[in-house]
Amino acid sequence: MSEIIKYIESNKDRYLKELIEFLSIPSISNDEEKKKDVKDAALWLEKEMKKSGLENVKVFETAGHPIVYADYLKAGKNKPTVLIYGHYDVQPVDPLELWTDPPFSPVVRDGKIYARGSADDKGQIFMHIKGLEAHLQVSKSLPVNIKVIFEGEEEVGSINLEKFISDQKELLKSDYVVISDTSMYTDNLPSICYGLRGLCFMQVDITGPNRDLHSGSYGGGVENPINALANMITKLKDDKGRILIDGFYDDVLKLTKKEREEFARLPFEEDKYKEDLGVEELYGEEGYTTIERVSARPTLDCNGIWGGYQGQGAKTVLPSLAGAKISMRLVPNQDPAKIAVLFEDYLKKIAPRSVKIKVTSLHGGKPSVTPIDTPAIEAAVTALKKGFGVEPVYFKEGGSIPIVNTFKEELGADSILLGFGLPDDNIHSPNEKFDLSNFYRGISTLAYYYDELSKIKI
Amino acid sequence: MSEIIKYIESNKDRYLKELIEFLSIPSISNDEEKKKDVKDAALWLEKEMKKSGLENVKVFETAGHPIVYADYLKAGKNKPTVLIYGHYDVQPVDPLELWTDPPFSPVVRDGKIYARGSADDKGQIFMHIKGLEAHLQVSKSLPVNIKVIFEGEEEVGSINLEKFISDQKELLKSDYVVISDTSMYTDNLPSICYGLRGLCFMQVDITGPNRDLHSGSYGGGVENPINALANMITKLKDDKGRILIDGFYDDVLKLTKKEREEFARLPFEEDKYKEDLGVEELYGEEGYTTIERVSARPTLDCNGIWGGYQGQGAKTVLPSLAGAKISMRLVPNQDPAKIAVLFEDYLKKIAPRSVKIKVTSLHGGKPSVTPIDTPAIEAAVTALKKGFGVEPVYFKEGGSIPIVNTFKEELGADSILLGFGLPDDNIHSPNEKFDLSNFYRGISTLAYYYDELSKIKI
Repeated sequence: MSEIIKYIESNKDRYLKELIEFLSIPSISNDEEKKKDVKDAALWLEKEMKKSGLENVKVFETAGHPIVYADYLKAGKNKPTVLIYGHYDVQPVDPLELWTDPPFSPVVRDGKIYARGSADDKGQIFMHIKGLEAHLQVSKSLPVNIKVIFEGEEEVGSINLEKFISDQKELLKSDYVVISDTSMYTDNLPSICYGLRGLCFMQVDITGPNRDLHSGSYGGGVENPINALANMITKLKDDKGRILIDGFYDDVLKLTKKEREEFARLPFEEDKYKEDLGVEELYGEEGYTTIERVSARPTLDCNGIWGGYQGQGAKTVLPSLAGAKISMRLVPNQDPAKIAVLFEDYLKKIAPRSVKIKVTSLHGGKPSVTPIDTPAIEAAVTALKKGFGVEPVYFKEGGSIPIVNTFKEELGADSILLGFGLPDDNIHSPNEKFDLSNFYRGISTLAYYYDELSKIKI
Repeated sequence: MSEIIKYIESNKDRYLKELIEFLSIPSISNDEEKKKDVKDAALWLEKEMKKSGLENVKVFETAGHPIVYADYLKAGKNKPTVLIYGHYDVQPVDPLELWTDPPFSPVVRDGKIYARGSADDKGQIFMHIKGLEAHLQVSKSLPVNIKVIFEGEEEVGSINLEKFISDQKELLKSDYVVISDTSMYTDNLPSICYGLRGLCFMQVDITGPNRDLHSGSYGGGVENPINALANMITKLKDDKGRILIDGFYDDVLKLTKKEREEFARLPFEEDKYKEDLGVEELYGEEGYTTIERVSARPTLDCNGIWGGYQGQGAKTVLPSLAGAKISMRLVPNQDPAKIAVLFEDYLKKIAPRSVKIKVTSLHGGKPSVTPIDTPAIEAAVTALKKGFGVEPVYFKEGGSIPIVNTFKEELGADSILLGFGLPDDNIHSPNEKFDLSNFYRGISTLAYYYDELSKIKI
């Protein structure tokens, strides 16, 4: 490995030059006019992966943007097969006027590279290519069997990826999936994300009277659908922040002692957190720390609400309709389809007879977890220690990456989320950036990781 | 009086022809392009009132549409002075495609005249002119002193009327105000509206975190302003429909035995009411009948609510802002300014420390009541009995007519609300109509009423 690390150290300048070239391609996947640019980014990857020494490099066309595939399968049958997944498309750049430099003219300042896609996710997938290249150039081989897929539609919901994975099960078959599309918990703290929350996103539509009424003539006579909806929302949680839907917690795995110890180790400054959010007091489920509440406990939030008159001034309407979008973040082993049914049953149970209610499930995603004490996670810990010289931490991410479940269901493979971004990288916002020190240390870490993974007995 | 009634009977055809002429003028006050038409309606009234025999007919220009004034003050100092108020402007006509006939081409079908303004309020003010004309043409005098003002801005909030009344106190000074701009309780049931509810219209704005957050990354960590708002709305009423704002009921006058008996006499078919509104069950304050709840008891309704994402599909936002419009209908002797303070205090008391709250008073109007057992109301009962041949009923109207309070405050005069529309007249909706039988009987009733009022000792 020391030759490989030396190779990485001596090629930093070239990596940066190549990264700038890659980040200059405006591969915005939701913009019809950028279709050719997205394709160009795929072709750039194809060329780079060929140069790196990867084999069977292929650009798969889809109904949308292409998927770039490559592999190197010469490590032998007793070595793990690792699928590297990432995405080369990027978010839109609006509002453009808030960018200090143009989003596709990468600029280095204070050890950070500023460009759309630098952290999410072009910078991070490029690191994998360089980690693999270092092995291939120095050792003329890879310690594990590697398969790579980079998609161009992650920012538009991976609309064609699921079908691709399902169609190409044989091609993609792997023991593990490695994804570098998350952040470290904080600066200088290499981190392993071992769990993601799932999602159950519902809509509730309430109908009171069959038409908008005058609140003077009818107020007091009939139920107001907004008041009824507010009452129902109130009945979703008790005053300790516990969700009251019957059976909601039935399948929730208790946090283990080890997990809670790991959460307690994570640096967290409540005052800074409150100041950043501009709130005087935090709020959440009693009996859990804020970190546990935002990452490892299920939650319920109203994402939207509407009804009646929303304009300036006064309008004395007693409206016919009101509605809300309500979502729940789920944790293992909650199932979004089951939770959707429990939610609907509960809402229908608590709805007063004076209104009509319609409950619709809009979106669902399963929670996922990769147990901490598994060889692939332990290998990641070792690699991070070597790459960063620091003991890494474990954490769970409160959001969802639905594709992780697809990999589990279609390929039977757990995902290891090894991300090198930082929480303040402004992904999805103006002035997206990526710290070059994490970029370089990350390449070494990934090179170590392929090596550590090779020690796992299959 | 019999000569006067005979005169009315023999002039019905002319009345209808004149009414059609008046209703053909599209005096929509909120439409800048109809400014000349509104003026034309004022000039039409000026001409008609001169022809009727009224004196001092004058069109007062205002910052908006004109106010038409006339009087006849020869009844003597020991006779009451009665101010007749009404409006000659009309509501817009959208959606035009739902009208069976064009809104300003009046059509008579099945004894009803269909046109915008037929019931609200051109038809009803025209009846007063004809009632006065009958007296003036037959007796060459009026039994009481009469002042008339018809405004052209009632449908846009009477924006210039208050100033006019305040500026012209001497000119308008009267013992009573008579307003025909309401409905009878139901068909064939001549009715006296002796009370109007007041209004306290508030807006509540809630701020949670200082920016929209990702509900995956922050859900469970901070209070969601929509959930907080829903909880606060829920705390405004208990499960018996009683308003929980501290001190809210302190100034509410109890309904008298006589009042509750009168309410009980009013015909009300709950099944028909529910069917019309399309609800399975009514809802309101325990211990009161539906009629009492919609007309004589204070209420609280959300008129609007908003926050977060309201579009199609799912968006996992934990929003920064949420808000609601909440109004209370008030009854004597509640004061809207005092209720606004109580509302704000209560909301601030129940708001969790995890959100910021702003409470704004948008509009207020005092409740009003004209005691049933007063001479002007008794005179109306007699006139209605003579005009319709039926014992009239008393009722209270759940809505507000703010100008009634202005008359009370500026002129010291109680208003008698003697309306001849019907609840199904489609005022403010397509196919507005007015029953001609009520139109003709109403003219006679008003002619009787001026006579009955003259028996009151001043």
